[in-house]
Amino acid sequence: MQSLAIKNYMKNDIEIAQGAKMKPIMDITKKLGINEDNVELYGKYKCKLSLDILEELKDEKDGELILVTAINPTPAGEGKSTVTVGLGQALCKLNKKAVIALREPSLGPVFGVKGGAAGGGYAQVVPMEDINLHFTGDMHAITAANNLLSAAIDNHIHQGNKLKIDSRRLTFKRVLDMNDRALRNIVVGMGGKPNGFLREDGFMITVASEIMAILCLADGLMDLKERMGKILIGYNLEGEPVYCKDLKVEGAMAMLMKDAIKPNLVQTLENTPAIIHGGPFANIAHGCNSLMATKMALKLGDYVITEAGFGADLGAEKFFDIKCRFGNLNPKCVVIVATVRALKHHGGVKKEDLNIPNVDSLKSGIKNLEKQIENIKEFNVPVVVAINRFVSDSEDELQYIREFCKENNVEVALSDVWAKGGEGGLELADCVLKTLEKDESKFETLYDSELSISEKINKIAKVIYGSDGVEFTPQAKKQIKELEKFGLDRKPICMAKTQYSLSDNPGLLARPSGFKITVKEVRVSNGAGFIVALTGDVMIMPGLPKIPAAEKMDVLENGDIVGLF
Amino acid sequence: MQSLAIKNYMKNDIEIAQGAKMKPIMDITKKLGINEDNVELYGKYKCKLSLDILEELKDEKDGELILVTAINPTPAGEGKSTVTVGLGQALCKLNKKAVIALREPSLGPVFGVKGGAAGGGYAQVVPMEDINLHFTGDMHAITAANNLLSAAIDNHIHQGNKLKIDSRRLTFKRVLDMNDRALRNIVVGMGGKPNGFLREDGFMITVASEIMAILCLADGLMDLKERMGKILIGYNLEGEPVYCKDLKVEGAMAMLMKDAIKPNLVQTLENTPAIIHGGPFANIAHGCNSLMATKMALKLGDYVITEAGFGADLGAEKFFDIKCRFGNLNPKCVVIVATVRALKHHGGVKKEDLNIPNVDSLKSGIKNLEKQIENIKEFNVPVVVAINRFVSDSEDELQYIREFCKENNVEVALSDVWAKGGEGGLELADCVLKTLEKDESKFETLYDSELSISEKINKIAKVIYGSDGVEFTPQAKKQIKELEKFGLDRKPICMAKTQYSLSDNPGLLARPSGFKITVKEVRVSNGAGFIVALTGDVMIMPGLPKIPAAEKMDVLENGDIVGLF
Repeated sequence: MQSLAIKNYMKNDIEIAQGAKMKPIMDITKKLGINEDNVELYGKYKCKLSLDILEELKDEKDGELILVTAINPTPAGEGKSTVTVGLGQALCKLNKKAVIALREPSLGPVFGVKGGAAGGGYAQVVPMEDINLHFTGDMHAITAANNLLSAAIDNHIHQGNKLKIDSRRLTFKRVLDMNDRALRNIVVGMGGKPNGFLREDGFMITVASEIMAILCLADGLMDLKERMGKILIGYNLEGEPVYCKDLKVEGAMAMLMKDAIKPNLVQTLENTPAIIHGGPFANIAHGCNSLMATKMALKLGDYVITEAGFGADLGAEKFFDIKCRFGNLNPKCVVIVATVRALKHHGGVKKEDLNIPNVDSLKSGIKNLEKQIENIKEFNVPVVVAINRFVSDSEDELQYIREFCKENNVEVALSDVWAKGGEGGLELADCVLKTLEKDESKFETLYDSELSISEKINKIAKVIYGSDGVEFTPQAKKQIKELEKFGLDRKPICMAKTQYSLSDNPGLLARPSGFKITVKEVRVSNGAGFIVALTGDVMIMPGLPKIPAAEKMDVLENGDIVGLF
Repeated sequence: MQSLAIKNYMKNDIEIAQGAKMKPIMDITKKLGINEDNVELYGKYKCKLSLDILEELKDEKDGELILVTAINPTPAGEGKSTVTVGLGQALCKLNKKAVIALREPSLGPVFGVKGGAAGGGYAQVVPMEDINLHFTGDMHAITAANNLLSAAIDNHIHQGNKLKIDSRRLTFKRVLDMNDRALRNIVVGMGGKPNGFLREDGFMITVASEIMAILCLADGLMDLKERMGKILIGYNLEGEPVYCKDLKVEGAMAMLMKDAIKPNLVQTLENTPAIIHGGPFANIAHGCNSLMATKMALKLGDYVITEAGFGADLGAEKFFDIKCRFGNLNPKCVVIVATVRALKHHGGVKKEDLNIPNVDSLKSGIKNLEKQIENIKEFNVPVVVAINRFVSDSEDELQYIREFCKENNVEVALSDVWAKGGEGGLELADCVLKTLEKDESKFETLYDSELSISEKINKIAKVIYGSDGVEFTPQAKKQIKELEKFGLDRKPICMAKTQYSLSDNPGLLARPSGFKITVKEVRVSNGAGFIVALTGDVMIMPGLPKIPAAEKMDVLENGDIVGLF
């Protein structure tokens, strides 16, 4: 994420992480005032927290909820997680009781291009290796629960198909936490009668499982079970919906999830507590850590810093309209992360020229930031802009952004947490504290979920994306009709759209206008409780690149891991 | 496993397990003298033990190694695990420092017919729910490592296939820890160029992965990595072997296994320490817990009780010729578990009549036990017979077995550990201690692994199974030739044969004679280090029954699990 110039003379992420002075996680729980009985250790530096904490602290005042989001990013990302971690560290440096709430990384992409991911530089959560590998097993539990339902579906059909499941119309897929393109589209049940009926199927990556989205919106184990029972798995031969609970396996699935439902606690490089729990896709799902984790953080900390996937048009909108709506959360401040490089990218500068100062391009690219600020204000939540600093940023460019923010009545701060940790986030932390003090949040969702599907999508597209309206393909129209027929339509919308543009065309940068959004497909995630509107093809099972990161990974005799960064 | 009469007035396994008075696992590790730094907690009642313990205690004397095996079982099983656990509990009651070493149960079958499995009645390991569900994540780590290699194979072919892998001759399969017949035979890579090349593949259940067998035979992380690198994944278009290391992912796979390699410690209902680690198939693999777990138990306890899958003709033979050979183990005593019911079954009694006393049938069926005793003596290890008691057993029947053992110069004891725990195993524990004192083990393996494949198989078939010889199908002959050509043949044999008969025909009970064994297929598990000889079709991916056990499983609001037994 940082320029090569920096990377060359600094340690890489895993080297920094391995040099961390971690405290035993029990020290962190004690500092948070958590009763020992509510802690389940996973080694010395990770633990799970009992949901009893929520019940025991239910009369305590909630902390201030701060969302970190971003402008529409470049493919390299704008450093949201890094800023989230760094801001938490900075608040702790100011003696504030801050708790960070983050998503769990997915294992599959670790072996592809990406390597590990848990913040970066001196703003990371640790133990980095564990968090990026199996962590506390939550992903594996989701894989197992998901695939138990899949096995039950095929077994039901094989054993007589009492429910008359239409194997041509099954929508529930198998999952694996691996980047494996060969599994995207498969035929199962080959080999004749003992192996069941032949049908087309496919594997998604585990984080795309509806069970992941459910985990992140449930308010406890019983709610999780009930929601899993509501998963729409497909239709029967009469065209009626078939649900998970019709197969009677939601109890066994909940049993598999009994530990996964508990939020995980780790720490940052500066020992700031970080609750890391759940990590749903930010396209076909809402892209935020679990509601239970956020709620627990709010009870344990005075300031809770959390993030949402993708840019603010997708991430923040879904955070507000899905997560905050379901959880009755009251966000108090939003930090929009921007980089000089990405704003110049929005201004039309080519990748190879991004290191060259260019205030003119910045001026036209900054309209993306302008729109994202306006969008957050639509929800009546105060905004702070964080400039995630790179060595290539010129003083003129930084100054221009500062002036722009001043004109727009928005606080702005430089963030240098990648290179300096919490120390590099003090300016941002000050800004956030000042904003929390002077600006009151009067948060409200964008739309009423009782509106029709097309009304809801139109509202998002017009108000948030700045589009002229929405086109629905004939397929999407048919799907909407069907959902309306079965009473599955009165739910919030989960937009699946490119993250690179405010529009549904990744090539339209900055602040496009005069465009329409095309909705190609509409599905229900009935257990999660939202309608997914897809504006294009969504990659639900990534592949490995020509030279997978896995080839450089190794573990040494002393147990040290190399190549995971 | 016990008759319905008992089950009706007694608690079931999970109810007994849930009533257990567990000690914090830290208390158990302290009693074993394990340094706190070598313990990684997974909650309060499970932990992983560092392999450093082996290094630190390398000069300590080993405890006495006791193997629990059985006659050829009925489909209900003879209660080997239960006797293993009960014997450990009984030895502790006699103030002996006993440690149990067991296999980890597989998750998939839990949802099928079987429910949970970790001993039974009052001879169980706990926490039973955790052990039967995700435990400490070892199975999931194996699934991930296995499927990373699979993804790397298909990715290599997709990205240009430099190694010229012949996709028609890939032998390495994907795995999932689920009973899912639809995945036995699949087509992957559908959908055109972005999704790779079309080919046939299949999923096995995770415990059938060669990585599981490797985990159980490796002596540390570096050995594990090296062995995984040696896995034969298939052949190239020139007909030459292709190995995992050609794809350069064994380092990443080892990284995924860095925690799975550490043995897990739990306890029995009576707080006897139990190391549970690894659980390879007993047909295409050798069916014993990990060598590292057994070696650690030998350093920590004065008596180590372990078991091997299936009857003694398969389980004990492979324990001796594969596990003890690789690990230089020196087994001191073998307990053969028999039941009156199974011996009558071998004597020709029908399932519905097994509760009726019938000494005549017992007399003809006991020849199975006779042969299994002779077999153990082939390895020069002292034998004790344990009669796993059922309420339906008559005094005459029990008396007959006692006399038979006396005539054969073998100690015999009743075991009633299912109903009475350690108390019910005191007679057996006494017998075992007496035998250890008076009879010296002069253990030796059955054959030299440098012999040819057919010589080795012939030796096992003649000496252990009592067959007249071995027929090799043309396919098997061709496979043997190929393994010889590539120098992959000088390894011990892993027989994959029915467990229900000494022969390869499940219908030939008691002590058949005048038969030949047919070897249909010969493969190499080159990483594990053995040759697999298959005498019939082996189920490597089970299916779910008409009414899966999963339908009765549930988790209650208080977190209690029901239906897992």
